[in-house]
This record gives sequence, structure tokens and C-alpha cells, in this order.
Amino acid sequence: MIIVNFKTYLESTGKRAVQLAQQAEKAAKETGTNIIVVPQFVDLAKIADAVEIPVFAQHIDPIKPGNSTGHILAESIKEAGAVGTLINHSERQLKLSEIDSIIALAREKGLVSCVCANNPSVSAAIAAMRPDITSVEPPELIGSGISVSKAQPEIITDTVKLVQRIDHKMTILCGAGISTAEDVSIALKLGTCGVLVASGIVKAKDPYSVLRAFADATKL
Amino acid sequence: MIIVNFKTYLESTGKRAVQLAQQAEKAAKETGTNIIVVPQFVDLAKIADAVEIPVFAQHIDPIKPGNSTGHILAESIKEAGAVGTLINHSERQLKLSEIDSIIALAREKGLVSCVCANNPSVSAAIAAMRPDITSVEPPELIGSGISVSKAQPEIITDTVKLVQRIDHKMTILCGAGISTAEDVSIALKLGTCGVLVASGIVKAKDPYSVLRAFADATKL
Amino acid sequence: MIIVNFKTYLESTGKRAVQLAQQAEKAAKETGTNIIVVPQFVDLAKIADAVEIPVFAQHIDPIKPGNSTGHILAESIKEAGAVGTLINHSERQLKLSEIDSIIALAREKGLVSCVCANNPSVSAAIAAMRPDITSVEPPELIGSGISVSKAQPEIITDTVKLVQRIDHKMTILCGAGISTAEDVSIALKLGTCGVLVASGIVKAKDPYSVLRAFADATKL
Amino acid sequence: MIIVNFKTYLESTGKRAVQLAQQAEKAAKETGTNIIVVPQFVDLAKIADAVEIPVFAQHIDPIKPGNSTGHILAESIKEAGAVGTLINHSERQLKLSEIDSIIALAREKGLVSCVCANNPSVSAAIAAMRPDITSVEPPELIGSGISVSKAQPEIITDTVKLVQRIDHKMTILCGAGISTAEDVSIALKLGTCGVLVASGIVKAKDPYSVLRAFADATKL
Repeated sequence: MIIVNFKTYLESTGKRAVQLAQQAEKAAKETGTNIIVVPQFVDLAKIADAVEIPVFAQHIDPIKPGNSTGHILAESIKEAGAVGTLINHSERQLKLSEIDSIIALAREKGLVSCVCANNPSVSAAIAAMRPDITSVEPPELIGSGISVSKAQPEIITDTVKLVQRIDHKMTILCGAGISTAEDVSIALKLGTCGVLVASGIVKAKDPYSVLRAFADATKL
Repeated sequence: MIIVNFKTYLESTGKRAVQLAQQAEKAAKETGTNIIVVPQFVDLAKIADAVEIPVFAQHIDPIKPGNSTGHILAESIKEAGAVGTLINHSERQLKLSEIDSIIALAREKGLVSCVCANNPSVSAAIAAMRPDITSVEPPELIGSGISVSKAQPEIITDTVKLVQRIDHKMTILCGAGISTAEDVSIALKLGTCGVLVASGIVKAKDPYSVLRAFADATKL
Repeated sequence: MIIVNFKTYLESTGKRAVQLAQQAEKAAKETGTNIIVVPQFVDLAKIADAVEIPVFAQHIDPIKPGNSTGHILAESIKEAGAVGTLINHSERQLKLSEIDSIIALAREKGLVSCVCANNPSVSAAIAAMRPDITSVEPPELIGSGISVSKAQPEIITDTVKLVQRIDHKMTILCGAGISTAEDVSIALKLGTCGVLVASGIVKAKDPYSVLRAFADATKL
Repeated sequence: MIIVNFKTYLESTGKRAVQLAQQAEKAAKETGTNIIVVPQFVDLAKIADAVEIPVFAQHIDPIKPGNSTGHILAESIKEAGAVGTLINHSERQLKLSEIDSIIALAREKGLVSCVCANNPSVSAAIAAMRPDITSVEPPELIGSGISVSKAQPEIITDTVKLVQRIDHKMTILCGAGISTAEDVSIALKLGTCGVLVASGIVKAKDPYSVLRAFADATKL
């Protein structure tokens, strides 16, 4: 599984976001890999219309329909075609009780929940709240080009160990600095089910080729 | 000027949001009134495609393009067709320095800034940062059906007085509990340029008729 | 174990806070019960000087000594005589990664960590981060006079079950609406090691008598 | 006027905080300068007992006595001997409506309010809410040793101009990087009433001598 977080890069905003999603779809179809795209809210509906691969939101709020302004309603991303959401990304951290509420809300609405952690201990805490996916990303490596799988493999192995002790069927991903196919294969060998990646794809000269190489690496 | 905040009501989500925007467009065109719609982020692009009246975002973040997740990029709402944004709505309050940054960012990007205040003193503070529009809304009346223009007219008159002392050309709106055409006319008589309204329109049985009556009231 | 959170009631501010701590000390000594007092930061040093029972802070921040303003430094509460701290009280909720950092910081500084949860799922998440104490308090019952042990016993039993699955030696407390000795005994029978209490003591006409009755109830 | 923010440096925690406050008192008495000390909450009562110069808190919360945990009650700092408070320091930033509430609360409780701003525009916004003191500090220079009065004098002069247009009697301070007596004199020449300083004093080898030099500089 490869989740591509579009963040708020200009390279993944508006029309360019649709093109990037289409490149991800091409790599997914050619390789039979589960590639998920995570565009900005504003671009979500157009991308869900344009591609057949899964689309996640970058965040949802722990709210019910009603008088909230500037918040993200689960129902709105679902109607737009999203099938899941990131939760607690290190760039959009949440209070513990909010994470718990959003996981429950996602479950209730049939949305896949992918909750991000900054270290093994926090990954274990997240696993105890039973989301669908836990992804560990050391914040200091995010966007660095230095991959977690090479620079801090023990963060991945400790996360796998602690999370599986709590929920042995949890889907575990890792991220931060993933930029080569080798980073992806190491991540899988260390016990994860895939990677959460952003700048490694979005800022690549040829995102399709990099994604294709990542996808191939998940097949070895 | 009438700004219709769609908030996160189901009545103003997805397809129903597009329909509501079209009803607002109809009332705007028939009466020559400036009616602005403020949908959820996810619905913004489709609505901007569907109607010719101005579309605002409910919020933008004080960020530049780059590694932010789950945030609202000015460039993304602009490419989607928004021409302005609410800032600091009482349901999405911001730190003072963030409000200042967002006003500057909106100015730089050519987006209209409408900053919300909860009382006259905060309205004056906002005016000192030179947004395009200041809107005062006592939080306790929001969604109450009890209109600020009848229940707390002194909040409006004090706001007009304090704001104009700082910027005598500021566009001033008021909101909270506005539900009848009379509420709108009183707001104008008290010195505002219009209203910021949400449930009074969104939850109305016939939003078009209510908006039409509001629009007519701004013409008297 | 009985933890008395002084919150910010006038009855537990300044001189009255010292007196309340002394009444708690009397009940603790007479019954041999572990009663911990949790005053406001400003009153912490005087209370730690005045009584021999353990004193906790209401919160600490995940910071090192340095350029932070208006934050609570672990070293400062320790030098003042505190031996532990509440973390993530429902009235002072924190981001997940902050809770994890503060637990680690407390461990490093030799401070007892008591982390609060709003439900069983969140309690389990907290247990996964290995604090010394986990306390579950349904927010809607806090200050209500309706005790969690009578109104929602399943919250306590579910918490005990989920937390012990992760850490079978964890000290578990419960709180919210605890106002009679019977509430305390039920809490213990349901598997907790004691209670976290505030208004039931602080706002009582005779705090000493209530605390004495609570302490006696922990001995049955 | 010289306000010395103790922040959370170890050099200004506990016993060392009391000593630092006594050195400030000595410099104040010898020169007849108004020097205000701003210790951590935990140290506030002991320092107010130990010195006769004014003591401020680093922050207060916009709350009334009651069920708040981990917050700073105006009544508690007042009973401990504080006569004022910093508000919205760049290391403890607040929502706009909270700043407004805290200024009103300080006024009601007879506490001096000193609100911090990061630039001239924010300073003007603050002035519109009528605190007692507005202090401008460009965050990028805080703790840098590069003084605002030399590196960015236009931030000071613009602040003075914008603030006085709104309230011509406002007490205006500046801060960030102030480390020499010359920095203080320039700040005064540019139109301020004094400085808000932290590391320049707290981390000095001989805080008394530096403060004495600062105090002398305010007399020229």
C-alpha cells in the first residue's frame, strides 16, 4: 500500500493535483498496487471524479452536521467521493480525545481511518483506539530526503512490535524521507504494509516513474 | 451585501450546496443585490463553476505552499474560483497574529478578507489590521433565531462607532440570529452595509424566498 | 488513593487552599490513606511547605528550561515540592504527542504521572504510553454530582478491562460526580485503586468530613 | 520602565528566581526606575513576599473561579501578590477574543495588562482593545542578542505611530534582543516608554550590573 499525501504543494494543487492523481492511477493499474491519493479538500471532488483509485482526505473534524464554520465534515468528504482520511498528521496534530472521536466517526461513516504517530509509543496508543491503519513518521525526517527506513529503522521495528502486541492485525505504514524504491523495500522488510509518502513523489521531476518504482518495490 | 455562510449543515453540503448557491444567485440577479455564498471547502470548486455570484471560503490558513497537511492554502481556494474568505469566525477562532497574517496574505493574493468579531472592542482591533470587511456577531445569538439587530442593537451601533473611528471607510456587517427581512433593514439603519447569515437561510423551508426578502430589504 | 483536584475554585485558592490541604493531610494521617492534593500552580510551593502529604501540579508543559513564557516547567514544580502531575485533564486537554512527551518528561524528572481519559478507549491509548496512573472521567458528569460509579459503571469496568490488557499493573482511578463514600466504595469494587475528586470535596460544607468518609470507604 | 520576563530559564527558577528579583529590586531602588519582574507562576508568591518592586504574572486565562484545571486564575495571582500580567507573549499566543476578555478581566480585577504584539499592525489592534501597556517584539529577534532597536527600528517607530493614532496615551514598550544600555536608550529615543527584556538579563553573568546599566540608560 502506498499513500501519497499531496499536502499543500503548488505541484499538487488544482489542475496539477488532478494530473498527479492520474499518474498515480496509471502506476496503480499497471502494477496492481493499492495506491491512495490524499489531495487538498478543495481538489477532492474533482480528483474523485477523475480517477478510480481510492481518495482520502487529509483530515476530518470530530463534528456532526450543523453550525461549524471552516471545519471538515465527514459527510462532505464522503459525498465528494473520499473513502478514507488521514488523522493526526504531524502537521495537523490533534488532542487525544479528538483522535478517538474521529476514529469512531470514520468507522460509523464507513471511512478508512489512517492515524499518524511520531514514534513507537504514540503508535501503540493509536493502535489501542483501533483505527484501520497506523502510520509512524518521525517529524524531524519529514521532507528531509533522509528516509526513516535507513536512518531510523528501529523506529519502524519498535512500532511494529508495540502495535502488534495490542492489535496483531493492524495495517502499519511508515513515512518520512521515503524517496527511493529501496526505502520502500526496506520498510516492507521491517514489517510494515507500505509507506506514506509526500515530497518524494509530489516534488519529483517525474512523479509517475518514482511511483511506478515504489509500486514495483512493494511486489518484490 | 448579504453573505450566506453554509457552515456544515447537511442542507448545504454537496449537491444541496450547489442548489442553495443557485437559489442565492437567482435572488441576487433579480434584485441586483451583492449576495456572496460561503460553502464548505469540498464544495467550493463545483459551486464556483455553477454560479456567477461571488464565492468565499469559510477559512484560510496563514501558510505558504509546501509541507502542510489538512490546511487551507490561499492558492487552492483561488484556483477553485473563490474570490474571498471568512477569517476568525466565532466557530473557527484564530490567534491574533494569525488573523493579521491571513489579512496580509489575502491582500497579497487578491482575495477579499471578511474578519469576524464577537463584540465592538474586538471589531475595533480587527479594523486596525485593515481587512476589507469586519462583521460583528455576538456568539450567544448565533443560530438562536433571536436577531442581534433587535436584541442587542447597541452592539451594532458601538461597533460602527469604534470601527469608523479607526477606518471610516470600512465595510461593516453584522450577524447572529438574523431571520427576517426586518432584521436586515434594522441592521442597515443601525449603520451596517449588510448581514452575515447562516441558519436563517440554510435551514429555511424555502431559502430562495427568505433570501429574496432579505435582498429586497437591503434596497429600501 | 484519593486525588483531590483543587481546580480554580475560590474555596481552594490562596490561604483557603492551604487550609484545605491541611484538612486533607489530617484525614490522610488519621486513616493511613494516600491522599494527594493538586492545587493551582501559584499555591503549590506554600502548600508543599505546609503539608507532608503528596502534592501534584494540575499540568506541566512538554518543555525544557529556556525561552518559554507562561508555561509550566517540570523543574519549577519539582523545586517547589511537587512529586507528580495531572496530565490531559478534560479541562486541559493535550495533543497526543504532547501527552507522550510529558509522560516521558515526568519519568525522567522522577515525577508521578497521572493521565486523564474521557472513556475506556482513550484510557487504553494512555495505558500504552506507560504513565504511572490512568484516571477515567466522563466529562459530562464532571461537577454534576451524579457519580460515574453509579451512573456509568460500565465506563469503569470497560476501562479496567482494556487498560489491564495493555498493562496489568497500571494504577487505575475514576472520577466525575464522586460525592459520597458509597461512590468511592463502588469505584473500588469495580476494579479501580481510588478516585480523582474535585467539587465533591472543594465545594463541600465540611471538606474534612467528606474526605474522612472517602478515606474510610477506601479501607473497607 | 523595564519589564524583566523570567521565562522558564533555570537561572530564573525557584531560589535563583528570588535572588534575581532581589537584584532587580536593588537596581530599581538605586536608580528610581520602575523595574517589574515576571517570574514563573510557581515562584510568584515567594517573590512577591521577598521584594517590593511590582511583580507580574507571565499569563492569565480568561476564566472565572470554578471548574478549570491547569489554568491561571486572576484571583490566584492577585492573592499571591501580583499586580499585573503579560498577555499574548509570542511564546504564549492567544485567540483575539481571549486577549480582549483578559484585558477586560485584568481591568475588572485591578491588574495592569501588558499585551505583546509581533508587529506594528498587531500593536494597533491591541491598542484598540485598551490595555495599559502594548509591547512590540519581532519574534525572530527574541533571544537572538540582535536588538530590535538597532536591527529593526522601523518596527518601533511604526508601532508608536499606529498605536498613538488609536490611543495617544498608551504606554508602549519594545523587546527582542535587547542586551546593552545603548539598545535601551535607542528604544526610548524612538518613542517607547521602556523595554521588555528576558535573556539579556536572565542569562547575563551579572544580571544586577546589566539591569543597573539599563536603568541608568532610561534616565538619560
